[in-house]
Amino acid sequence: MSTLDLSDRNLLSTLDLSVDEVREVVELALEIKHGAHRPDFRGRVAALLFFNPSVRTRLSSEAAISRFGGSAVAFHAGKDTWNFECRDGVVMDGATQEHVRELAPVISRMSDVVGIRKSELITVGNADAGVTSDYRELKRDEFLHAFAEHAEVPVINLESNTWHPMQGLADAMTMVEALGDPRGRKYVLTWAWHPKSLPVATPHSQLLAAADLGMDVTILRPDGWSLDQEVVAAARSRAEALGGGVRESDDVEAAYRGAHVVCAKAWGSLDYYGRFAEEAHAKRVLREGWIVDAAKMARTDGARFLHCLPVRRNVVVADAVLDGPWSAVKDEAENRLWTAAAIYVAMLGGGR
Amino acid sequence: MSTLDLSDRNLLSTLDLSVDEVREVVELALEIKHGAHRPDFRGRVAALLFFNPSVRTRLSSEAAISRFGGSAVAFHAGKDTWNFECRDGVVMDGATQEHVRELAPVISRMSDVVGIRKSELITVGNADAGVTSDYRELKRDEFLHAFAEHAEVPVINLESNTWHPMQGLADAMTMVEALGDPRGRKYVLTWAWHPKSLPVATPHSQLLAAADLGMDVTILRPDGWSLDQEVVAAARSRAEALGGGVRESDDVEAAYRGAHVVCAKAWGSLDYYGRFAEEAHAKRVLREGWIVDAAKMARTDGARFLHCLPVRRNVVVADAVLDGPWSAVKDEAENRLWTAAAIYVAMLGGGR
Amino acid sequence: MSTLDLSDRNLLSTLDLSVDEVREVVELALEIKHGAHRPDFRGRVAALLFFNPSVRTRLSSEAAISRFGGSAVAFHAGKDTWNFECRDGVVMDGATQEHVRELAPVISRMSDVVGIRKSELITVGNADAGVTSDYRELKRDEFLHAFAEHAEVPVINLESNTWHPMQGLADAMTMVEALGDPRGRKYVLTWAWHPKSLPVATPHSQLLAAADLGMDVTILRPDGWSLDQEVVAAARSRAEALGGGVRESDDVEAAYRGAHVVCAKAWGSLDYYGRFAEEAHAKRVLREGWIVDAAKMARTDGARFLHCLPVRRNVVVADAVLDGPWSAVKDEAENRLWTAAAIYVAMLGGGR
Repeated sequence: MSTLDLSDRNLLSTLDLSVDEVREVVELALEIKHGAHRPDFRGRVAALLFFNPSVRTRLSSEAAISRFGGSAVAFHAGKDTWNFECRDGVVMDGATQEHVRELAPVISRMSDVVGIRKSELITVGNADAGVTSDYRELKRDEFLHAFAEHAEVPVINLESNTWHPMQGLADAMTMVEALGDPRGRKYVLTWAWHPKSLPVATPHSQLLAAADLGMDVTILRPDGWSLDQEVVAAARSRAEALGGGVRESDDVEAAYRGAHVVCAKAWGSLDYYGRFAEEAHAKRVLREGWIVDAAKMARTDGARFLHCLPVRRNVVVADAVLDGPWSAVKDEAENRLWTAAAIYVAMLGGGR
Repeated sequence: MSTLDLSDRNLLSTLDLSVDEVREVVELALEIKHGAHRPDFRGRVAALLFFNPSVRTRLSSEAAISRFGGSAVAFHAGKDTWNFECRDGVVMDGATQEHVRELAPVISRMSDVVGIRKSELITVGNADAGVTSDYRELKRDEFLHAFAEHAEVPVINLESNTWHPMQGLADAMTMVEALGDPRGRKYVLTWAWHPKSLPVATPHSQLLAAADLGMDVTILRPDGWSLDQEVVAAARSRAEALGGGVRESDDVEAAYRGAHVVCAKAWGSLDYYGRFAEEAHAKRVLREGWIVDAAKMARTDGARFLHCLPVRRNVVVADAVLDGPWSAVKDEAENRLWTAAAIYVAMLGGGR
Repeated sequence: MSTLDLSDRNLLSTLDLSVDEVREVVELALEIKHGAHRPDFRGRVAALLFFNPSVRTRLSSEAAISRFGGSAVAFHAGKDTWNFECRDGVVMDGATQEHVRELAPVISRMSDVVGIRKSELITVGNADAGVTSDYRELKRDEFLHAFAEHAEVPVINLESNTWHPMQGLADAMTMVEALGDPRGRKYVLTWAWHPKSLPVATPHSQLLAAADLGMDVTILRPDGWSLDQEVVAAARSRAEALGGGVRESDDVEAAYRGAHVVCAKAWGSLDYYGRFAEEAHAKRVLREGWIVDAAKMARTDGARFLHCLPVRRNVVVADAVLDGPWSAVKDEAENRLWTAAAIYVAMLGGGR
């Protein structure tokens, strides 16, 4: 029986969990997956606020509680709901109708845990996002933190501008499943070309997941597409404490050589943040060289291929990789379910 | 154990419950809140039709059944569903695709209770509502009553043009919690300025809640912003039968003096109904004097402050009131959950 | 106890079930309806993907699992989700973001059964559908079959371009309830005029339902509005094997004479498929003669009237029929719930 207790904690960033706690979540998730621990969420309600579209996150967040007797209520904010305010002291005579100072405690009183997805850059189709602010502004994840401050139950970040901790946990679980103890094994987080400028939240949490397992991490990306250096520094510090490390590189050939895990992700440049047309022009020369294909995977040490999904086939990764022996993307997605269940157990209690 | 049985009744208006029944609902809700009565809704399904956005109402309606073993299915009408017809004898070759004569019995056959939110004036943002009819037309709540007529299970009004009975019950419960026996205590329902013209359904049901507790009620509003006089007369009759009373006034200072409860709500003028630009012009001089602030609350007898939420901070009510000792708005919202559970118990049975 | 086992099967077309299996589903559904069999779906999750609006299908699909302890998660694709790709080998640099090769296994890993509604012709209001392809293209139901191919759990078609098998099963159950053994009884599937061009999926499955019960079937439709001849041939073959038959006719008077069941449905001409304005012009002379009214029903042998709903009153069928003794449409809709529960039992196991 797990002793992990997050009942008075939030999970807003992967950094909210210690390295030991990440391992405990993974172990609990493995026990739940294999039937050694059966959660009991009867009478428990998860309230889920989606400001962005979602398949995996919503299904895993709902199924993880409802298959063990609880239930979830999902809101699609801005369609089913009001517009929310989170600045203090404002005179609300404009377009916002409800303040998080009311919203957060009210939802808390009617539920046992709250999940929130709010990212300014996730959109459907090729529509431009309406982002004009720069990344330093958005990385504050203002609504999420304001909500958590005023909530009376644990709050889970289901993807913000900066972090996607539930994806990181699923990746960690998948690597433990695949490698046993991943400590010291070679992990490559590779940037990929994509027609849009995607958020950095997921690669941030994926990077942390590998660091928290003490892996030898390479962030493979072109010049100008670095991740948030604060996040990179935090990951490096955690990895090094376990005997691993974090380096950045644009040497594709060297990065793949001997890798045990290749995790692909497209993300937008923080330098170009909000200037999407300019970034698209600047990266057009990068389309050819960065796709994950069978030739690159052949240079690895039989690496497992990870991607958070959804993934654009033959743009980010070739069919041959997704349909070949390397791919662990289905297990990785499935593990969203078990890690979500483990987090609920840690936050809500229940089970044996 | 409660003996309240609403299994062959609807709750379309607060007037559908007798004063004694309102008290029974409140007592049952208090028992459920404190664990003295645990409902058992296993196998029960609530179907919820939302024609308008909702946070509190949807979450409370879903959580109240699902935390006790049942489940809810929420529809966002007009998006997830067809357009509905409720006039009899019509040749349906226009924009409507399904008649309530089919819709209501069909939903009834697949569920145990139906909740409906349908108000012509609830919108998101500052968009004008598309209302052209006058209030006398809309107050008939035609769809709601046609649905209830053809339904085969109990129907709950989750806010119509005229009534919001579930809000009234939560307010009643909150006042009983705060005051013990509210009979004869001074209750002020104050109008507030708001950039939009909001529905009268909620203040109608709030007024009734205070009347049904036998309180000494003042409706504080500017000339021209009276509530529906039929509703006011019904409230007065109920209040007086219990030794209370209902008066209307525009004397702000006198109204607050010695109050035990101040309930704020913005609503649109019935005289200007549908002529929103004209009303906005007429009420621009009212913006300053009607906000609920600390100075006004200081004149009360330590009154509890109520608001149904969502509320525009520093427009309807000042931060100092919402964040100060007067505020009962979180309890009031939470009580939406417990009163909903009580109504389900009365309609569905179950529990001990 | 039913021995019907569909745990490694899909239900994409009514033809996926043998005639014997259709009868077994109907019998199991009747047992569940009458309490002789109580399913146990605790811990089970149904994932439901709706690309089109739905009332009956969504409520029956959700309620059938949740009233017996399981739960459902419904997605409104294109609003809550990504755009999906199902062509193999494509370079996904356009408007699609996720391939069914990922989507299907991922949803499978998080759920126990998947339901999909995807029809190009179902729209709300009078808006033209965006269909330009011809019927031969759309009848392949490409997304549905691609999803099923890559899914790891049973997939249920909740209405595609070609089939609506869950409606067919509910119709079969309703006829067994009304007639006992429907074999050899006269069944009329009548076309009706409608302002829009509606899909053929439902009449296809309704036709099969009558054929699978061995009925004497007449498809009553104007010249130019034949159903898919492949489907008609399959239905004829199944009906004849049981001593029934299938004929097509445009003789309204003869068709109604002595009928035991009249099932009405509007559908678009396969010849005009996608050319809606031309079809509307061609069928304008058909508006008067095809409505199901009391005079026509009076010629039957006390026939039961069926319609899948929603139905346009006084366009497809007269008030007098829907509100008269002939109508079985409420039972037919209710039976969507019980047949859905029976299919879940067959696919998921559980119950006694």
